[in-house]
Amino acid sequence: MAVYTHISNDEIEALLEQYDLGHLRFAVGIAQGVENSNYLIECQKKDAITKYILTIYEKRVNPQDLPFFLGLMQHLSARGFACPLPIQTRKSELLTQVNGKPAAIISFLEGHSKTQFKNAHLAELGASMAKMHLAANGFKLVRENTLSLAGWKQLSESLGDKLDTVLSGLSGAIAKEIAWLEQHWPTGLPRGVIHADLFPDNVFFTGNHLSGVIDYYFACEDFFAYELAICMNCWCFEPSHEFNVTKAGHLFKAYDKVRLLTDRERHALPILARGAALRFLLTRAHDKIHHDASALVVPKDPLEYWKKLLFHQQVQSVAEYGIV
Amino acid sequence: MAVYTHISNDEIEALLEQYDLGHLRFAVGIAQGVENSNYLIECQKKDAITKYILTIYEKRVNPQDLPFFLGLMQHLSARGFACPLPIQTRKSELLTQVNGKPAAIISFLEGHSKTQFKNAHLAELGASMAKMHLAANGFKLVRENTLSLAGWKQLSESLGDKLDTVLSGLSGAIAKEIAWLEQHWPTGLPRGVIHADLFPDNVFFTGNHLSGVIDYYFACEDFFAYELAICMNCWCFEPSHEFNVTKAGHLFKAYDKVRLLTDRERHALPILARGAALRFLLTRAHDKIHHDASALVVPKDPLEYWKKLLFHQQVQSVAEYGIV
Repeated sequence: MAVYTHISNDEIEALLEQYDLGHLRFAVGIAQGVENSNYLIECQKKDAITKYILTIYEKRVNPQDLPFFLGLMQHLSARGFACPLPIQTRKSELLTQVNGKPAAIISFLEGHSKTQFKNAHLAELGASMAKMHLAANGFKLVRENTLSLAGWKQLSESLGDKLDTVLSGLSGAIAKEIAWLEQHWPTGLPRGVIHADLFPDNVFFTGNHLSGVIDYYFACEDFFAYELAICMNCWCFEPSHEFNVTKAGHLFKAYDKVRLLTDRERHALPILARGAALRFLLTRAHDKIHHDASALVVPKDPLEYWKKLLFHQQVQSVAEYGIV
Repeated sequence: MAVYTHISNDEIEALLEQYDLGHLRFAVGIAQGVENSNYLIECQKKDAITKYILTIYEKRVNPQDLPFFLGLMQHLSARGFACPLPIQTRKSELLTQVNGKPAAIISFLEGHSKTQFKNAHLAELGASMAKMHLAANGFKLVRENTLSLAGWKQLSESLGDKLDTVLSGLSGAIAKEIAWLEQHWPTGLPRGVIHADLFPDNVFFTGNHLSGVIDYYFACEDFFAYELAICMNCWCFEPSHEFNVTKAGHLFKAYDKVRLLTDRERHALPILARGAALRFLLTRAHDKIHHDASALVVPKDPLEYWKKLLFHQQVQSVAEYGIV
């Protein structure tokens, strides 16, 4: 939870001269957020008062990927999907610079994330996810998923024995899991642009209505059903680590209504869910192992995803997820 | 720059049930701020959309002082001074609790702080400060300044030799300065409630107009002119450590227009300025010496105030401050 790049109000006012957004009313650094520095800013242009997010991209984002991320937001927004819209400078550019780092101003999305979910929220999520998958169709830029099988293998090998400091025997268990996934990972499933990080933090609601999705900085091309598998992991487990089949049922049913899931996609879910659990187990283990005690961010618990992986390893058929 | 107590949107929504402010639209943890945890929240009640600050008081604030701080804001606000107003719960209380810590919701003040000042800003500051001193008149609660002579002595003695890790010879120099101040500290100057932490961070402007003053958590009773001395230190030095007599002149002239400074107050300024420099030198040295590398806050530089103290020690008369 941090702002890494500090910028004064006077500096934000100077930055705003590159845009046609009026003058600054206020700015606050946003404590939430792990990857980038974000400021909520409010501008006034004549009588119109509008909020925006100023994002300064820190080292974890590859600047070469920014045209993909920002272009995707433009593409989705133009197709009526509720997501932040990057604002163009007076020179029609989407990117600017703050302290030598790439930065962008994007529109502010109404609503807020939730931590407690009813079935209605899961249904909203399923429907919106499917709409997003359909709306992304036709987007011209391409970004591979660098955090899929090959990426996991590379990451686990680079962490090596250090994984065993997270949990005794973890490096061996992960190597075995990767070998299994390499043999079983599906091919030929319907694919396109996915968000790839649809955690509850990134999904906003107003009341029980999903008002939009933020944070496209892991978006990439992959199986649509892999996105469902990620969401199964981060939306359908109870704090007690039990899988809630009712929530999963609402998620899938609502998705299926907007974009029909094929039988092959359904049957691939237990495998995809293992991969999705491994992906977050590995990146969280990486963040914990490389955690600098003086850093501003408290690393998330990798073992939460280890437990989820163990659960999916026991699953015999997709019916156990409560999906008909 | 940190939020110490993390609270989810769902928890904020639950907290809002204690208030008559409507429902939550959004909340962001504010990265700026060193003492307490602050969230900017926006609420909607029927058609009215209003922003507030939710403050969770962390260990540096003595809970017994909170009625003074919150009561002062109510008192100043009722007298037309632009400051945040604590919001009452449905049970007419100013304080609530978050995770076992005292917490309050206060109104949001329009405007934003500045880092670059023109003479007009100094004049606005002087006039507002004087209005605040006058508006505080009649406030019934009392809080001594725990960070005056006795407090400095106690703090410097508790830090002892460790002060020399900040700068070689500092403990001796500070002991000598305290002895000098004990002999010369004025008595009988006009006194009342002062803000005692009127740093540029805490003063908001809209355009060049001062729109309000925030953060009353060091407010106490002391000499009015001591507040001017604090502001001389934090508003009138250039980044190159040179004292700007033009800015100081505008500050004092505007103050004097609203609340006439006595000759005794004017002549006491070089001594008060030494005390004010010592106060921030000591607390910054304390924060640096006791800094935990894993803490979320980067300690401010104590030596900035050491240099200011050295400057004031050379001052022969108040005329050197550009004050007529």
